[in-house]
Amino acid sequence: MEELKFVEQMKLRSRMTVSQLVEQMNATGVLGAGKIGEAAELVSEMFIDPDYTVFLTLAGPIVPAGFRRIIGDLIENECVNVLVSTGANMVHDMVEGLGYRHMVGTFAAQDRRLKREKIGRIGDIYIEQEAFQGLEKWLFKTVEAIPEEKRRRISAAELLKDIGKRIEDKESIQAIASRKNVPIICPAFVDSIAGFQLWTFGQDKTLRIDPLQDVNVLMDKVYEAKKVGIIMLGGGVPKHFALFANTFREGVDAAVQITMDRPEPGGLSGASLEEAISWGKVKPKGRAVTVICDVTIAFPLIVAVALEKLSKK
Amino acid sequence: MEELKFVEQMKLRSRMTVSQLVEQMNATGVLGAGKIGEAAELVSEMFIDPDYTVFLTLAGPIVPAGFRRIIGDLIENECVNVLVSTGANMVHDMVEGLGYRHMVGTFAAQDRRLKREKIGRIGDIYIEQEAFQGLEKWLFKTVEAIPEEKRRRISAAELLKDIGKRIEDKESIQAIASRKNVPIICPAFVDSIAGFQLWTFGQDKTLRIDPLQDVNVLMDKVYEAKKVGIIMLGGGVPKHFALFANTFREGVDAAVQITMDRPEPGGLSGASLEEAISWGKVKPKGRAVTVICDVTIAFPLIVAVALEKLSKK
Amino acid sequence: MEELKFVEQMKLRSRMTVSQLVEQMNATGVLGAGKIGEAAELVSEMFIDPDYTVFLTLAGPIVPAGFRRIIGDLIENECVNVLVSTGANMVHDMVEGLGYRHMVGTFAAQDRRLKREKIGRIGDIYIEQEAFQGLEKWLFKTVEAIPEEKRRRISAAELLKDIGKRIEDKESIQAIASRKNVPIICPAFVDSIAGFQLWTFGQDKTLRIDPLQDVNVLMDKVYEAKKVGIIMLGGGVPKHFALFANTFREGVDAAVQITMDRPEPGGLSGASLEEAISWGKVKPKGRAVTVICDVTIAFPLIVAVALEKLSKK
Amino acid sequence: MEELKFVEQMKLRSRMTVSQLVEQMNATGVLGAGKIGEAAELVSEMFIDPDYTVFLTLAGPIVPAGFRRIIGDLIENECVNVLVSTGANMVHDMVEGLGYRHMVGTFAAQDRRLKREKIGRIGDIYIEQEAFQGLEKWLFKTVEAIPEEKRRRISAAELLKDIGKRIEDKESIQAIASRKNVPIICPAFVDSIAGFQLWTFGQDKTLRIDPLQDVNVLMDKVYEAKKVGIIMLGGGVPKHFALFANTFREGVDAAVQITMDRPEPGGLSGASLEEAISWGKVKPKGRAVTVICDVTIAFPLIVAVALEKLSKK
Repeated sequence: MEELKFVEQMKLRSRMTVSQLVEQMNATGVLGAGKIGEAAELVSEMFIDPDYTVFLTLAGPIVPAGFRRIIGDLIENECVNVLVSTGANMVHDMVEGLGYRHMVGTFAAQDRRLKREKIGRIGDIYIEQEAFQGLEKWLFKTVEAIPEEKRRRISAAELLKDIGKRIEDKESIQAIASRKNVPIICPAFVDSIAGFQLWTFGQDKTLRIDPLQDVNVLMDKVYEAKKVGIIMLGGGVPKHFALFANTFREGVDAAVQITMDRPEPGGLSGASLEEAISWGKVKPKGRAVTVICDVTIAFPLIVAVALEKLSKK
Repeated sequence: MEELKFVEQMKLRSRMTVSQLVEQMNATGVLGAGKIGEAAELVSEMFIDPDYTVFLTLAGPIVPAGFRRIIGDLIENECVNVLVSTGANMVHDMVEGLGYRHMVGTFAAQDRRLKREKIGRIGDIYIEQEAFQGLEKWLFKTVEAIPEEKRRRISAAELLKDIGKRIEDKESIQAIASRKNVPIICPAFVDSIAGFQLWTFGQDKTLRIDPLQDVNVLMDKVYEAKKVGIIMLGGGVPKHFALFANTFREGVDAAVQITMDRPEPGGLSGASLEEAISWGKVKPKGRAVTVICDVTIAFPLIVAVALEKLSKK
Repeated sequence: MEELKFVEQMKLRSRMTVSQLVEQMNATGVLGAGKIGEAAELVSEMFIDPDYTVFLTLAGPIVPAGFRRIIGDLIENECVNVLVSTGANMVHDMVEGLGYRHMVGTFAAQDRRLKREKIGRIGDIYIEQEAFQGLEKWLFKTVEAIPEEKRRRISAAELLKDIGKRIEDKESIQAIASRKNVPIICPAFVDSIAGFQLWTFGQDKTLRIDPLQDVNVLMDKVYEAKKVGIIMLGGGVPKHFALFANTFREGVDAAVQITMDRPEPGGLSGASLEEAISWGKVKPKGRAVTVICDVTIAFPLIVAVALEKLSKK
Repeated sequence: MEELKFVEQMKLRSRMTVSQLVEQMNATGVLGAGKIGEAAELVSEMFIDPDYTVFLTLAGPIVPAGFRRIIGDLIENECVNVLVSTGANMVHDMVEGLGYRHMVGTFAAQDRRLKREKIGRIGDIYIEQEAFQGLEKWLFKTVEAIPEEKRRRISAAELLKDIGKRIEDKESIQAIASRKNVPIICPAFVDSIAGFQLWTFGQDKTLRIDPLQDVNVLMDKVYEAKKVGIIMLGGGVPKHFALFANTFREGVDAAVQITMDRPEPGGLSGASLEEAISWGKVKPKGRAVTVICDVTIAFPLIVAVALEKLSKK
């Protein structure tokens, strides 16, 4: 047996910084704490090494759960170079940009009553349906302002970029991404409230979204990267789309995924990153860490450490 | 407290039929067994009552795991009227249609070795990469046979229908669906191996997939339905797309979902069907059953019961 | 790569037997269905081969969920030779033996109201507190009938055997086990409602439970076995106690566990059976199957198949 | 609908303290992050309010995973007043006290090889079997030093206290607990490596462990408490035993549990704290927080915050 590290017993103190805590976790090296430590190191490296093109994928209620500024700041600080997201997260970014707010509810909700009160529930997060009516009005006006010629064939990425330019809220992910020229790839944008609204729009206005164009946008980033680092919050289409695109360059160099899904049922969302090696999504010598944890707990821990390391580089 | 049913103690016997077993499970009425019992009754009703338009959504490795004929037969027998699927399941249906086979592997695989041997892994299922090369060749030829005019603006559903017509394998889901005029909706078809292959195709041939057209196909089914029943195998885009479309008719009347995802992290795949009521995806008086189980265990049990009830109606 | 089996596509039919269904699952060989198939074969072998001493471990609400007769029948038919259980399952066996019944409730219960109505909840199973008052009265009388001399130092196994003799209900697990001379090992019997009741009893009557004597009872079975097969429903103390005892004979020969717990947090309940090999709990050449599934779904399927094979041997 | 709080978007900064991070999490108020925030507040209150008797329950590899000093410090600082543990955690505390160390391994271990090299695996933690041989020698000597009269009837708590006095390592949980007079309750101590070793010891030496005496020790603490706060790391016997004991005082006042187990299969380990209200384990007006998270991630976060609040009180 090769030389093994000892598990160091943690020591907690009042007033410790997140970095100090995660260092302690890293020193144990095992179970969830060990994974947090490892992931924090790998994400730090992705943020610090300028050779990395960093893909961040979003699935689950990332924006509704309070991560909007975290994502926005990561783009602003050029830590993240490509965003691959569910449509829903962009919908909720727009909705917050229009001044609507998510609310703290409960999992043990009376959903029939919520329906009567026109509140939609996402886990223990509530949002008024009014927000989506406001969104529709704004979205129609905003999309109509895009030249018709362009609307004849547009990728979701291009559409989101144009939308981002028109969001006034400085904290909007889309606004920041537009300004920083970071593409937002939504391969299934049609599967979102905005997607259905644009379908209505398209009944009597010109709009043809061409998802094959989104592949172009994504592949440009894949091909131009020296190294690719990928951070996956949840699974779904964003995880698959971003990983599969990287098979065209023999896989990503570094990968961190945070998920609560299990591998045993065989779905991609819970699939291990070892499995990804067989497909050429992760390089055989790539580094990969899977953190089995609620994203809202693990990701802030990891990012806080990476920001500290970045500030000291 | 209202009158409560007693938990009946199960009695197992040699040579019992699946229906008899599930009846026993139903008589306990509790935990997983109780849910299997309830789901079997609700699915039976969806299959038997001609007023139901039945949506079946597929996420996870449904076809690779051995469900291809089950799905095909359900379409053939007119139990299922709309299929909403990940692109991957259609890719694997085509691949089996071309004579390639999935293989029994192991979760504890040596993925670097699999990569060298050109085998892709999905949980404990293996598939040779050669299959996808075969697919590409066949797909290019097949899509090219579709009139160019049609390829200028085509929904994924229409594309899959045209592809289905050209699959010779009688057991192909797509072939059967084409013949039976059951639409296959893949809102994120681009996020599949075939999607990337069609992107390559589109580099020098005409092909514009328009996902807003897929909304049309789906909404036609939603609007024409007297009652909607939905069976969701796994979550992801298929679950969301099919449920959200049904908000335009005040929700589905009956819903069964089978998943191993948890509700607590807030993602849609693990979301309860109670939550769906708040959004108008499920009717406030709709019936809904969530089975927390591996799809490959629960769904055959449920379908075997429903087929028996159907044969006796 | 060694020769691999193909995944056979399942075919479902009306009126199929459980065995036929599980054969289909086994033919796929993958994911949960494949595990059910494998487990059914291994359990069948344990039941049929007379060289096997079969340990069955119970954790979770096995009796409340409707498995009382299944367990009783397995003991009656000499399929199971040693039972290792939580105290709670024996408590609920006694309670049903006294004529109290479990009821079908709901996970979405109003627990404050249940408390007021003196109903205890176990998932979606309800039971009146009255049952435990009835139990106490009966238990005091029953234990007092055991000669005081014996009560000065008694294993939980011996105590449960004596109790079993005094249960009139023919379907009681304890009654059957007493009659068939199958030991019931409850290493943590004190951690049950009956355990606390016996603590009260012991305030002014003689009663000293000696758990080291339970090790004797268990080890006798371990040492006398030609082969050991173990079936673990859930994890907890029963899983650990039964597996650890078998390290004294270099491990069990065959093991099936059914659990919904994950391995990643490191607890024994979710631990893989591979891990058990490192400890000598499972023989290096032993056969072991883990089924990730709700016990109430998987176990009846597996047992129904094994009963059929047993009847044909 | 009553007034609802808004989800505040988090803001991460370099060099932030754990408290500042958890404050941000608390401000979102939703999903896992919200639960961490709530749990940190409740645990802080338990530590600060002198009226609280605090029970800490341990299941899973708490000591092997690097929590030995954390637990020791909490006892030393009188934050924890009663420890209810699996036997295994005390075994691993003794083993570290004898100078053996846990090692950082991998989940993807070759367990047959580990067995040959005499290494036991717990998730991704390794420990040499030699440690348990060393333990046996030391334990026999140590227990023999306890007066025979006392060994004729001893609770596991008393035994562990006597053992604790004889551990020289200052960081040992048992040594600290002995010195601070904090009882360690192991209702299933026999189900541990030490338990089996003591069984061997008992073959020719006097030793009778009486678990009903452990109930006495526990109930004394329950009855003398003004308020009870309970922190449950994992489930199992420790969770049940500690909660059930508190039904004798109408339930605990405050409860925090951290677990990765699901509620749906019905086992106690994954049971909600709402369910506990129906049984009188938690007071109807008690406060209770369930954090669905790997203990090794969530608990250090929570404790670091509580220590800071404690230092400022």
